[in-house]
Amino acid sequence: MAELNNLKGPNLYPRRKPVNPSQWGVAAPCSSEQFKSDDNKHKPLAKQWHHYLSIESANRMPSSLKHVVTHLQDPHVISLGGGIPSADFIPFEEITFRPLSPISSGSQDRKALSTVKTTLYATKHDITEGASIYDLTTALNYGQGCGSAQFLRWVTEHTEMVHNPPYADWRCSMTIGNTSALDMCLHMLAQQGDCVLTEKYTFSTAIEMAQPLGLNFIGLEMDHEGILPESLSEVLSNWNPELHGNARKPFLLYTIPTGQNPTGTTQSFQRRQAVYQVAREHDLLILEDDPYYFLQMNEYASSNEGHSGTGIRSLEDLFMNLIPSYLRIDTDGRVIRMDSFSKVISPGARLGWITACQQIIERFQFHTDVSTQSPSGLSQLAFFKLLDDYWGHAGYVKWLIHLRNEYTKRRNVLISACEKHLPKDVISWEPTHAGMFQWFEIDWQKHPNASHKSLHLLEEEIWEESIFAGTLLCKGSWFCASARKGTDRIFYRATFAAAPLHKIEEAIGRLGKALRKAFRLEEDITF
Amino acid sequence: MAELNNLKGPNLYPRRKPVNPSQWGVAAPCSSEQFKSDDNKHKPLAKQWHHYLSIESANRMPSSLKHVVTHLQDPHVISLGGGIPSADFIPFEEITFRPLSPISSGSQDRKALSTVKTTLYATKHDITEGASIYDLTTALNYGQGCGSAQFLRWVTEHTEMVHNPPYADWRCSMTIGNTSALDMCLHMLAQQGDCVLTEKYTFSTAIEMAQPLGLNFIGLEMDHEGILPESLSEVLSNWNPELHGNARKPFLLYTIPTGQNPTGTTQSFQRRQAVYQVAREHDLLILEDDPYYFLQMNEYASSNEGHSGTGIRSLEDLFMNLIPSYLRIDTDGRVIRMDSFSKVISPGARLGWITACQQIIERFQFHTDVSTQSPSGLSQLAFFKLLDDYWGHAGYVKWLIHLRNEYTKRRNVLISACEKHLPKDVISWEPTHAGMFQWFEIDWQKHPNASHKSLHLLEEEIWEESIFAGTLLCKGSWFCASARKGTDRIFYRATFAAAPLHKIEEAIGRLGKALRKAFRLEEDITF
Repeated sequence: MAELNNLKGPNLYPRRKPVNPSQWGVAAPCSSEQFKSDDNKHKPLAKQWHHYLSIESANRMPSSLKHVVTHLQDPHVISLGGGIPSADFIPFEEITFRPLSPISSGSQDRKALSTVKTTLYATKHDITEGASIYDLTTALNYGQGCGSAQFLRWVTEHTEMVHNPPYADWRCSMTIGNTSALDMCLHMLAQQGDCVLTEKYTFSTAIEMAQPLGLNFIGLEMDHEGILPESLSEVLSNWNPELHGNARKPFLLYTIPTGQNPTGTTQSFQRRQAVYQVAREHDLLILEDDPYYFLQMNEYASSNEGHSGTGIRSLEDLFMNLIPSYLRIDTDGRVIRMDSFSKVISPGARLGWITACQQIIERFQFHTDVSTQSPSGLSQLAFFKLLDDYWGHAGYVKWLIHLRNEYTKRRNVLISACEKHLPKDVISWEPTHAGMFQWFEIDWQKHPNASHKSLHLLEEEIWEESIFAGTLLCKGSWFCASARKGTDRIFYRATFAAAPLHKIEEAIGRLGKALRKAFRLEEDITF
Repeated sequence: MAELNNLKGPNLYPRRKPVNPSQWGVAAPCSSEQFKSDDNKHKPLAKQWHHYLSIESANRMPSSLKHVVTHLQDPHVISLGGGIPSADFIPFEEITFRPLSPISSGSQDRKALSTVKTTLYATKHDITEGASIYDLTTALNYGQGCGSAQFLRWVTEHTEMVHNPPYADWRCSMTIGNTSALDMCLHMLAQQGDCVLTEKYTFSTAIEMAQPLGLNFIGLEMDHEGILPESLSEVLSNWNPELHGNARKPFLLYTIPTGQNPTGTTQSFQRRQAVYQVAREHDLLILEDDPYYFLQMNEYASSNEGHSGTGIRSLEDLFMNLIPSYLRIDTDGRVIRMDSFSKVISPGARLGWITACQQIIERFQFHTDVSTQSPSGLSQLAFFKLLDDYWGHAGYVKWLIHLRNEYTKRRNVLISACEKHLPKDVISWEPTHAGMFQWFEIDWQKHPNASHKSLHLLEEEIWEESIFAGTLLCKGSWFCASARKGTDRIFYRATFAAAPLHKIEEAIGRLGKALRKAFRLEEDITF
């Protein structure tokens, strides 16, 4: 990660290649390839994956209207081609953003920071006037499915610095977030009736997305480090189509390796290597959904409460402490990595990106061009101004260190409150090390109605009791990958991301009360 | 449209109902129903359409995570539920927009307008401080698939004023543009192997979207008013599955009724009524893709050049001159109308909306919640500030009148140039009355190589000749609905939207030269 040191000082981008100015025009076609460093040229190419494409994806062709814009790279040509409105007919003349400054390492003083009065702005004429390479004329008009060249450059550079994929022909393409990216990947790779491997408990939206497409999620066994490679290997080695509606042997692993949603588990480097090895043996593609990558924390120790506790003070510290991603160890090009800005900048902007080998990215872009079209230009412009013009890569990393410290603090407050207020006889947890979520297990067999009520009903009753007490959780059953099989355990997911920091202890206190009431425990033990 | 008169003056929104303040919170659930006028209560309900849902759509369930937010309407509840980041972790503190003023009717003086210095702004604290109902805290966080309550209200009101659907249970839901909306509608309604009826030439992106899904577009015959109802009736009355790969009888009509892309044709009110009648007889659903609705112009007369020529000076004038939409005559609730801001405000914002009966909108939202998630909050906030806070409905209509006049001027310049510069022996056109496109037919039989080159090759050669001369057009074959059948005619599509106004004549002059060269006509006839 030594590259990051080069990004300090006035010349933030010493390695950037010169580009043709037509690169920055309205809906100008572009590719990550233009922005990758030459170091990539010496790497081997990805394996071939065409045999895994769905019929839908294999049949995709490039969009005529997106492609026609390539002819406008010649400034002599007058366009009577695409139905691209004149900038005069777009009624925004100027936009400004007042951002936070990139937080200095270790700084906890947010009030001091909010006095910084930097204002980022864009008008319609910044490109023609040479004031910027990205302006309102470009951002508010049509774009390409891969995103604007301006912001795709930053994303490509960031990906190379952080993940440095070990094969040559990797590419990035912008997305409107990981949910949409996963939806498009499932359409690209899976056919009705296919089985997709995933953590036993996983992102409920992924389950709800896959089910109407006729896909079956197969939940793999987990421990405190997430997926067990032995479970993955066992399912694949003993695949019996007859037990799965005659489905072919799975070739897709969908995993959330860091701060897994909902269990909060994080796969160690060794765990990732072991899973990747099984993926090679059975020739899997890995869908790496990793929105919480930078929300990795240190171990919880009860003395941590209220302190950042992570000891992260510098860029070097951060990168020493980040577990390498699947993309970083992906010598075969079998990983499709989905990154999102939702958890680290803003969910509402709907911006993320996907990184994979060129064959996959091409299919993805063909789909984007005829569905989502492109991410919002306003979102891209705001992020470009913040991340490229103002913070730069090094400033962004400082922000990530700040977030890591803040989330660690929140996690510590939550866990402290749990230790103080929850009846450990009936609820248990392992402190989470990344992301936004804490997973709780209920010892339902101690519930007074355990013998004559279904687990489903008990889960619902305890959940409603908690809401009645004033604390909203998510029910574990929403996240059960193999919905039809059900489960013989009761879990709840809590997040320490949403509530005001000073309310977290109160919320856990209420949960404790609700549990005592539901389980008819004496009130005065710990509360 | 008398309602519009009520929207002048200081109280722009006299009919708005009071709403609960929790309506404006982060990811707060909402529905058009909250914002429709009471007049709708007296209308009949839509017919039932569940029998047309695809298996995929019928299997959709509400999203657990979007639904859980409903519990936060109670301010007592502390959320440890959704992974919604705290506003502190979103590094934008303030945003401002400098918009154009709503153009006064008939004003052509754009320089005077740009001196208006109104600035719209939003901070993170506008809602808590009572300064606005929409702020950065809300816009930059997660949203609902239907869009933000704040902007959905404006969209619902606009739809009621302009289209006033004649049934009670209509709803709107925000989209990220008509391309994505159509993609989702096809997934909602069509199954692999289905045939979808459409204009003989249609939006190339729709063709490219449908083909990989295994859908076949059937192109209907057209005249200068678009689809011929007789052609629609004939295809349906004589449906023979064996001629269409055993496909069931079509029940979807995809049409662009106004300024059709690519032919530029506009269906008259009588034509729409006749098509709707056939749709009733054969129980069709109509996918009304209408981004150019407000770009309707008057007839072209050659004396018009350079003048707005439409005589539209007031709101009443405008509405007298707008052809009613399919939605407006849709007593059965069989129309799914797709509106877009791409052609009237900004394509890059990726914002539009869909209007249909409640049954359809519910399915659409279930899909949105687990795919696109929601339109960009920055885009919604910018549009809310412009259209609700600043312009209001009446100001927006003034802007639409301005656009209509400007597009009319551009159309007139283009057609004048065609009359002056194009060799009428080999190219012909009917001046367009709406939208952005002019459709040209080539008399290819006069081409010197007509006897020994394929139409495909001739089309390509003439196209390249035009690009070589410096004018970019779109090839007609890109828009051929029934791609496999091919066509025995050559067309090109030109837009008058993209080029600077003063370049349009030059572009057409170059096209004239290219045609003369390709057809070996003498240079000096008209140029």
